Amino acid sequence: MVAAVAATCVIGVDIGGTKVLAGAVDADLGVHHRVQRPSQGLDTGALLDTLAEMVTEAADAAPGEVLGVGFGVPAVFDRRHGVIAACPHLPLVGVPFEAMMAERVNLPVVVDNDGNAAMLAEWRHGAARGVDDALMLTIGTGIGGGIVAGGSLLRGATGGGAEIGHMVIDFDGPPCQGACPGRGHYEYYASGNAIGRAGRDAAVEHPDSALARELNAGREITGALVTELAHDGDPAARESVALVGHRLGCGLVSLVNVFNPEIIVVGGGAIAAGDLLLDPARLEVERRAMPSLRDAVRIVPAVFGSEAGLLGAATLAFEELAPR
Amino acid sequence: MVAAVAATCVIGVDIGGTKVLAGAVDADLGVHHRVQRPSQGLDTGALLDTLAEMVTEAADAAPGEVLGVGFGVPAVFDRRHGVIAACPHLPLVGVPFEAMMAERVNLPVVVDNDGNAAMLAEWRHGAARGVDDALMLTIGTGIGGGIVAGGSLLRGATGGGAEIGHMVIDFDGPPCQGACPGRGHYEYYASGNAIGRAGRDAAVEHPDSALARELNAGREITGALVTELAHDGDPAARESVALVGHRLGCGLVSLVNVFNPEIIVVGGGAIAAGDLLLDPARLEVERRAMPSLRDAVRIVPAVFGSEAGLLGAATLAFEELAPR
Repeated sequence: MVAAVAATCVIGVDIGGTKVLAGAVDADLGVHHRVQRPSQGLDTGALLDTLAEMVTEAADAAPGEVLGVGFGVPAVFDRRHGVIAACPHLPLVGVPFEAMMAERVNLPVVVDNDGNAAMLAEWRHGAARGVDDALMLTIGTGIGGGIVAGGSLLRGATGGGAEIGHMVIDFDGPPCQGACPGRGHYEYYASGNAIGRAGRDAAVEHPDSALARELNAGREITGALVTELAHDGDPAARESVALVGHRLGCGLVSLVNVFNPEIIVVGGGAIAAGDLLLDPARLEVERRAMPSLRDAVRIVPAVFGSEAGLLGAATLAFEELAPR
Repeated sequence: MVAAVAATCVIGVDIGGTKVLAGAVDADLGVHHRVQRPSQGLDTGALLDTLAEMVTEAADAAPGEVLGVGFGVPAVFDRRHGVIAACPHLPLVGVPFEAMMAERVNLPVVVDNDGNAAMLAEWRHGAARGVDDALMLTIGTGIGGGIVAGGSLLRGATGGGAEIGHMVIDFDGPPCQGACPGRGHYEYYASGNAIGRAGRDAAVEHPDSALARELNAGREITGALVTELAHDGDPAARESVALVGHRLGCGLVSLVNVFNPEIIVVGGGAIAAGDLLLDPARLEVERRAMPSLRDAVRIVPAVFGSEAGLLGAATLAFEELAPR
């Protein structure tokens, strides 16, 4: 019988607005056990209990010692006090999340925004490896962000920085979603939701399109459906994705001029559109960003797909909890 | 006879689009000798010669040893190669500025963007002292910027970061000035020039205003004049400054959400408008920024006025050239 090497692990937990993904992860980012549960519709206590059960299950299945737990939360997290300061999709506002989870799982706990976690995964192990100035956009329902500036993750004064989706790109624009009181924010124009909205407009405008046929058949025109039809070659769907790509590029111009990054990594569900989304964005950066800064940046898709949050939370736990 | 203490000095040089200010500065930011010369209309060689003469004059007048020279340039400066990458107002593009000046003045030379220099002065000695996350906006003809993130000056991959004036706040907006190919940039809406433009519009709209009287008398309606009339109580001038203040605030919303700073310092000529400009900006941040981030930030006027660039360039020289 060959003895398996007992790899030291952490538990990575990616908390989303609809589901939670947890796993036991080793230092090479090997995932040894995965647990998935819905997060929607739970009250605060039930959600925290679910998270604790998932961590325990993953920890029990880990092949070696478990150093601790890293959580990526879809929230503005106040690192000074360990408290969730804003959280549009889950009942966690005001919850002293770090302390409450540490008590429930009886392990050291670290917490960060899910965009920061995804950036960390791409920076340490993915598309932005070895780079000192990088940005990550996680484009799904909204836009999550993570920033590496001068070789450090940018967290801001209270830990709530990098809310890239809440940059203003149209100061007279429509209201932002949920708890955000802003107007004309980037995520209104350049998220997966924006692709769906552009697709619905295009379906009405082009009654002969595949998009219009889906709409007439009673199907909901989501960003994912528009992307699928765009890949299938429907001109109206392609135009919808391209429109959002152009607006994505307009926001990237701000980011290029302000951060002078070497790389911008684009991930999240919307990256399923691939270059149909990224090429118009790159074109806008090419046209509009300051030339010397534009020439220094590459805009690339993320290496990690739907596991970026889990792997990033695990990376965070290794960095903050591993003995040095 | 009492021997004067020979204070170790550096030479700080603030290069502007119309004039250059140089001085011998000691470690307590005492300025021992000032030189001022016009920069406008000179070709590259004449400008570099003028700068060298100014440095020599200041160095000769310094009360002690001169460690070196710090230059703040109104330019995108490529720190990797010591070359000026973009410079809208002076014939310096492509010039290997660091090496050429070091040769001419025979002293160690350090160079940075003027916005970074002003941020450094306010961070080390002024309004942002002791803070790890801060932003500086220098509002004049355009908007210059400097950023401290996580306790370091943000410079970006090539040294050209912090071009805050070139954030997009209206992606369908008018073209940017000079060499910048962007559209709808922050400095179009929220600079001193924008105050002048708003004033000209208001003069036409309100023919009974003091602004209109100045216009009819053939005076040029500049940002400075509009600010002066606003302080004198002219409602049309106040409205013009407030309009620009609101737009200034819209851009600050982006900066608050992305950087989560503890302090935003506003300087430059336009800060002559004081709270007539800052209060509408603060109101917009209060209304539109993410609440937990908004509550963490203060928006304050700069401590250093027209000498911020000179003092920042000197601070840069002390930090990079002083023996440790």
